[in-house]
Amino acid sequence: MPGLMSCRTEFGPSQPFKGARITGSLHMTIQTAVLIETLTALGAEVRWCSCNIFSTQDHAAAAIARDSAAVFAWKGETLQEYWWCTERALDWGPGGGPDLIVDDGGDATLLIHEGVKAEEEFEKTGKVPDPTSTDNPEFQIVLSIIKEGLQVDPKKYHKMKDRLVGVSEETTTGVKRLYQMQANGTLLFPAINVNDSVTKSKFDNLYGCRHSLPDGLMRATDVMIAGKVAVVCGYGDVGKGCAAAMKQAGARVIVTEIDPICALQATMEGLQVRTLDDVVSEADIFVTTTGNKDIIMVSDMRKMKNNAIVCNIGHFDNEIDMLGLETYPGVKRITIKPQTDRWVFPETNTGIIILAEGRLMNLGCATGHPSFVMSCSFTNQVIAQLELWKEKSSGKYKKEVYVLPKHLDEKVAALHLEKLGAKLTKLTKDQADYISVPVEGPYKPAHYRY
Amino acid sequence: MPGLMSCRTEFGPSQPFKGARITGSLHMTIQTAVLIETLTALGAEVRWCSCNIFSTQDHAAAAIARDSAAVFAWKGETLQEYWWCTERALDWGPGGGPDLIVDDGGDATLLIHEGVKAEEEFEKTGKVPDPTSTDNPEFQIVLSIIKEGLQVDPKKYHKMKDRLVGVSEETTTGVKRLYQMQANGTLLFPAINVNDSVTKSKFDNLYGCRHSLPDGLMRATDVMIAGKVAVVCGYGDVGKGCAAAMKQAGARVIVTEIDPICALQATMEGLQVRTLDDVVSEADIFVTTTGNKDIIMVSDMRKMKNNAIVCNIGHFDNEIDMLGLETYPGVKRITIKPQTDRWVFPETNTGIIILAEGRLMNLGCATGHPSFVMSCSFTNQVIAQLELWKEKSSGKYKKEVYVLPKHLDEKVAALHLEKLGAKLTKLTKDQADYISVPVEGPYKPAHYRY
Amino acid sequence: MPGLMSCRTEFGPSQPFKGARITGSLHMTIQTAVLIETLTALGAEVRWCSCNIFSTQDHAAAAIARDSAAVFAWKGETLQEYWWCTERALDWGPGGGPDLIVDDGGDATLLIHEGVKAEEEFEKTGKVPDPTSTDNPEFQIVLSIIKEGLQVDPKKYHKMKDRLVGVSEETTTGVKRLYQMQANGTLLFPAINVNDSVTKSKFDNLYGCRHSLPDGLMRATDVMIAGKVAVVCGYGDVGKGCAAAMKQAGARVIVTEIDPICALQATMEGLQVRTLDDVVSEADIFVTTTGNKDIIMVSDMRKMKNNAIVCNIGHFDNEIDMLGLETYPGVKRITIKPQTDRWVFPETNTGIIILAEGRLMNLGCATGHPSFVMSCSFTNQVIAQLELWKEKSSGKYKKEVYVLPKHLDEKVAALHLEKLGAKLTKLTKDQADYISVPVEGPYKPAHYRY
Amino acid sequence: MPGLMSCRTEFGPSQPFKGARITGSLHMTIQTAVLIETLTALGAEVRWCSCNIFSTQDHAAAAIARDSAAVFAWKGETLQEYWWCTERALDWGPGGGPDLIVDDGGDATLLIHEGVKAEEEFEKTGKVPDPTSTDNPEFQIVLSIIKEGLQVDPKKYHKMKDRLVGVSEETTTGVKRLYQMQANGTLLFPAINVNDSVTKSKFDNLYGCRHSLPDGLMRATDVMIAGKVAVVCGYGDVGKGCAAAMKQAGARVIVTEIDPICALQATMEGLQVRTLDDVVSEADIFVTTTGNKDIIMVSDMRKMKNNAIVCNIGHFDNEIDMLGLETYPGVKRITIKPQTDRWVFPETNTGIIILAEGRLMNLGCATGHPSFVMSCSFTNQVIAQLELWKEKSSGKYKKEVYVLPKHLDEKVAALHLEKLGAKLTKLTKDQADYISVPVEGPYKPAHYRY
Repeated sequence: MPGLMSCRTEFGPSQPFKGARITGSLHMTIQTAVLIETLTALGAEVRWCSCNIFSTQDHAAAAIARDSAAVFAWKGETLQEYWWCTERALDWGPGGGPDLIVDDGGDATLLIHEGVKAEEEFEKTGKVPDPTSTDNPEFQIVLSIIKEGLQVDPKKYHKMKDRLVGVSEETTTGVKRLYQMQANGTLLFPAINVNDSVTKSKFDNLYGCRHSLPDGLMRATDVMIAGKVAVVCGYGDVGKGCAAAMKQAGARVIVTEIDPICALQATMEGLQVRTLDDVVSEADIFVTTTGNKDIIMVSDMRKMKNNAIVCNIGHFDNEIDMLGLETYPGVKRITIKPQTDRWVFPETNTGIIILAEGRLMNLGCATGHPSFVMSCSFTNQVIAQLELWKEKSSGKYKKEVYVLPKHLDEKVAALHLEKLGAKLTKLTKDQADYISVPVEGPYKPAHYRY
Repeated sequence: MPGLMSCRTEFGPSQPFKGARITGSLHMTIQTAVLIETLTALGAEVRWCSCNIFSTQDHAAAAIARDSAAVFAWKGETLQEYWWCTERALDWGPGGGPDLIVDDGGDATLLIHEGVKAEEEFEKTGKVPDPTSTDNPEFQIVLSIIKEGLQVDPKKYHKMKDRLVGVSEETTTGVKRLYQMQANGTLLFPAINVNDSVTKSKFDNLYGCRHSLPDGLMRATDVMIAGKVAVVCGYGDVGKGCAAAMKQAGARVIVTEIDPICALQATMEGLQVRTLDDVVSEADIFVTTTGNKDIIMVSDMRKMKNNAIVCNIGHFDNEIDMLGLETYPGVKRITIKPQTDRWVFPETNTGIIILAEGRLMNLGCATGHPSFVMSCSFTNQVIAQLELWKEKSSGKYKKEVYVLPKHLDEKVAALHLEKLGAKLTKLTKDQADYISVPVEGPYKPAHYRY
Repeated sequence: MPGLMSCRTEFGPSQPFKGARITGSLHMTIQTAVLIETLTALGAEVRWCSCNIFSTQDHAAAAIARDSAAVFAWKGETLQEYWWCTERALDWGPGGGPDLIVDDGGDATLLIHEGVKAEEEFEKTGKVPDPTSTDNPEFQIVLSIIKEGLQVDPKKYHKMKDRLVGVSEETTTGVKRLYQMQANGTLLFPAINVNDSVTKSKFDNLYGCRHSLPDGLMRATDVMIAGKVAVVCGYGDVGKGCAAAMKQAGARVIVTEIDPICALQATMEGLQVRTLDDVVSEADIFVTTTGNKDIIMVSDMRKMKNNAIVCNIGHFDNEIDMLGLETYPGVKRITIKPQTDRWVFPETNTGIIILAEGRLMNLGCATGHPSFVMSCSFTNQVIAQLELWKEKSSGKYKKEVYVLPKHLDEKVAALHLEKLGAKLTKLTKDQADYISVPVEGPYKPAHYRY
Repeated sequence: MPGLMSCRTEFGPSQPFKGARITGSLHMTIQTAVLIETLTALGAEVRWCSCNIFSTQDHAAAAIARDSAAVFAWKGETLQEYWWCTERALDWGPGGGPDLIVDDGGDATLLIHEGVKAEEEFEKTGKVPDPTSTDNPEFQIVLSIIKEGLQVDPKKYHKMKDRLVGVSEETTTGVKRLYQMQANGTLLFPAINVNDSVTKSKFDNLYGCRHSLPDGLMRATDVMIAGKVAVVCGYGDVGKGCAAAMKQAGARVIVTEIDPICALQATMEGLQVRTLDDVVSEADIFVTTTGNKDIIMVSDMRKMKNNAIVCNIGHFDNEIDMLGLETYPGVKRITIKPQTDRWVFPETNTGIIILAEGRLMNLGCATGHPSFVMSCSFTNQVIAQLELWKEKSSGKYKKEVYVLPKHLDEKVAALHLEKLGAKLTKLTKDQADYISVPVEGPYKPAHYRY
């Protein structure tokens, strides 16, 4: 992870995070361990939980717990345990919560926002959150945890909010939530959108998934990808990476899309763009990459071929209708191995293979993105955290969502190029003037799409 | 060109351009003919010149001149003739110039801006432009033309400026000039940056060049691309398309880049990133795509293999040091066929092949981008022109540079999807709410990179 | 054409073809000109005709006629003219015909065989060939020409046969005819099958077509290949090259096949394998590569989309039912430019685009295979001719079909590697013994498939 | 494994293997389990061992041992244990050995041939094999085992030989040995070369390795392949699959080759062809695919980058100089996890990563080829065994090496096509006659290369 190593060399001596408490909610893998160790090497105190119930690599969690930070994460948490871990990672004891949050998917941020909302309601009306007020089983758990907190300290989440300098968030889903809160005026602290750094969105999403989709498929099922028909739902950066990986491995790829621009990009790469309904009975592999919900429903699954593989590499497990599947009358679940289940429908006695229980298959069935890609993403996180902490008192960051300045984005790339033996050309002053950029960059306007 | 056809169907009946004078400065090809006929079908009067001395297809120019508009363009203009054509296309007689400009590269816009500057200087100081004040032979011609104009009417370009509602510009180079003028406060009228519509920048630049680079190479030289070493200078959208085309055709591709992010993208596609100097003597094909100048100098050319092919698909002919080559002592030019010259160095008696005299090889040696791609670009132009004309009195557009709103960009894509048999998935209201977008789009935030 | 140049250097001084008369029937292009000049540089006398009515490049024919050999070929021959040319190229005057034939498609070989057959019949029964005895218009012409010959000299073709040392043939079609004649016991002289040298079949057919299919399509139609649906009929070496080219250019490719092994190869590359009937109305581009007849019938063409492109790169124009099209009641042919015709059906007023009148589109619409590929093929021809001539009296070659020995095949490859900067690894004696091959090759068993 | 399932359906009822004893020496994986069960379902008795010390999947071995056959195989055998297992699988007790052998690499065949040789020597001279007569540690073990056998029964291997009807062999290495024995006149029983069925050599070697090389790399090291430099030693079918996989995953691929034809193929795909020595210090991943020995020596490894990955997917572990590495003075082996070792050189303290101890990495680090590919290979094995057994008394097969007839090869392909949704076109009688093949195939001449 060359970017993180360079951060340690460059910033370690000056201990810029001295005095900072950082809470992270991010897949507790060996790559994340290197991130945590980088944060502590720069002076921070750290508490950590995972942002996915299956993604923790227990040996990584154990090593960090032993050497570097308090860790609340293990592979195969229940939802109840998951949210308990999140709350634990945020609770730094009497002095309130963390100074900074490293977030992935926004669950840590969500818990504080929901907590503050509940405390305000309680202060105004005396009402405590009612878990039975929602049908969503996960949100029921969130409300229960907040309710318990309220009973101990009715200002618990207010204290957290007051101390917080800011959050850096690295997923499309989490960032979307932040922009919504900014739009609604409910965002409680500054946020840096790390997801939309080029060296994150175009690397983690695109190249990371191009690597880890086939990795997860092969580890979970040993399926020969060549010759198969693969449906990729969504053709954003994640979908582009997935479709490229399946095509290169010799599959015939069909894309589903809502956005005409992305759909046109798919056709220009020779991919067929159809609706799921058109192709559901002829495909062998289904991958959801949308970041939306209800993409593959149980009614779709029933029409699939026997032993069709269904998996999600988008974000939440609600891309696939797991609830519909689990509650389908008479359905039988046969666990082939952990994270690889065959679900058999009673009418036809045929079944489909669900990976990672509908959650992120690259984390559940393989080891997530490779270190090189994560080094790009995490170097963005470190640089964002440094920026937030440095400007904690300057007022530079309001309760809004910001992207990293382009020269920092280019810096992240440069830190990773050397390792690959690439050699950059240097602009002359004359050339730089001709295209009106500084010799040392940044080289592109903000709207440039790469 | 399905987008243009749809525009005629949708807007033709209401004649929205009734009363509008449009001057275009854009390669006078058969695709452009369809654009011009679309503008006139929507009610406009049109005068046209080409934006490249070699790109005119004479049969297209003739057909337009006969049926639709005044055309000042032929294949193989001298520079003198080129600027004369530009001036002619802008001069609508006594009432001033055009209401709208369709620009490609910004030469029409430049001429007005330089004209106004000279007129101001003349008004203040009585000084007329002095062509000998510059070493640049092309700019000498521009100054001569302005000088002549000044002698006839010292307010000629002021009148043009005053009448102008705005310009829509479709190239990276032209847009860069516009943003510079905006930054300097010298922009004289509103401008819509059509280049940075996704359906332009990601289609024309990327897919267009992926098509037309090999097309131009094959028509000009019949070279077997497989097995060769191709150096692509620059890995922006044009460079990405070129590198993809060369790789797919079986060449080994080496990229040169100044921007670490683009360089890292190249390595992730398995391309070697080196400096030109490292590889100049081992490659067979060199392609410049940078939009900058002085990329391949005569000192580089002298180190190349015998019969190395050198061409430019970026923008101006100064990407390749044509001046250095032409003035190299003892160099011999052997024209193999029009637009394909072998230049032989006296010391070694070996030579290199220069395509299209260093100008855009896809236009000079082939027929430019295919109609489908140009339909995307030109539909953006039509929509931008409609927007400028509709808002001519509303004050919506100041003397600044604007991009098209995303829903219009998505519309351009949608108009082209059907023709390819693609079928879009529709969001449910519930899903749209879940990701906070309208059911009918736009679907992505402004900063989304595709 | 590095292989041919090396042949001249290696064999020129010893003039191995001294005294040999060579007749060639092979596309009269600039590459063939280099072949002819190589044969004459090695001492041969040469007479030449083309093997395709459209493939002659007139400037190449003229240059050869002026400097090197008697040439009977021009672009756009009628069928009558075509067979007249073939007969002329075979007729060396009183002493009989050629010593050696360089054949492409087997028409020169066919004419002699048919001639001999007719002469035998005439000798036995006094019957002369009756052109009206066949429905095939081309074969009618062949019979007419033989009939005329018979009237002048009833032993004309016998004399040719008696003098002939052998033929080298380079196409699948021609080779198939030779093996049939060998099987029937009717082959009149030895034949070397150059087509099945690896450096021919895997290079000319595969890499050559991968290059020249898109070249022909782009020159003839300027069509954007990306986003289109292309049907490739046949997935042999030619089909593999065509499918790869279309896929790489961004088309969605559908393959039709009769052979389950080739079909399985197609699926392993992610291509869809369907029957023509299944997809005829959804595709944009149709390419025949089978070497068989009646692949795309006029009944298929009528079901195609408006402006679907139909072309043949297999061998004869009967892959496409041109006769059915030409005789379709009320059909209209609109020539867009030479070799690019739009045929409009009267019922629907929609039309399809036929390239090169159904003949080889890469020769008709572009300039055929690039020189590098042809250098591989033609070096095989020269080496085969040398072998036949050297062994003319040794009895080594019977009236059978032979392939070139593998070490000569490897030699052809080696002659072309250097030019591409490739560097071979050398076996140690110990390694060579370990795998039981000579250090200097040949390295593979005869059945090896590459 | 559709081919095997079809065999059961087609042949199961008639029990064609009734009375046949089959010994297999072939990786004891779950796919092989399906093969064994197919053989027993057709009536055979079966004994089995693995042909690689690491490739056994213990759960597969256990299941077979329980239900179907005697199995002598476990993951991580010593060489001593390996040959003990081979001998056990061949020893069917008093009545001699097996009737048929299914071989992979030829070790079962080798043991019998060496046994017979030793018995003959013993009969003539009374000399028993002397393990110390060879430096090769593995061959020392072979000799020990034969020596022990000799002491129990001096005709043990003669009895085996006498009973044997034939062997079917599926690897390049094993087949090479068979052809050598045929050439030397020492082959003791008929052999069918299954390796050179198209549906084996072009599927297992090419598509299988294209799948399982990245699978093994990712499981063993989680390395990001994109952006790395991969050296593939050898560009036969295995090398072609490996190079394609690495290129597609975004690596830059360099090939080493001895054969000019294969080298030229590599360049035509845009791959650089260099010697190992030229690139040893710049690459990240090294893969041997040659089937030869001494490809990467310890002297090469010392020049590699820190943490370069070195692995073998060719055949024997002597492609990589494991002996040189193990005996390098001061070298340290650090086992990261089973089959993934870091070897650190004392001088530099840098190390390289060796996968699967230099043995087949796809079997050692992943699960070998996917079932679909193995189904092709194993269906060939079953069909070959059926043919040998059917013709056991007919004298059709001499003590020579045979390939399967092409119509059986096509049959294997057809059995797998359906599963992929492919639809074959059918020849008309007229078309079949035109190209002189039967309507139902076989469609290609014996020398066709696919």
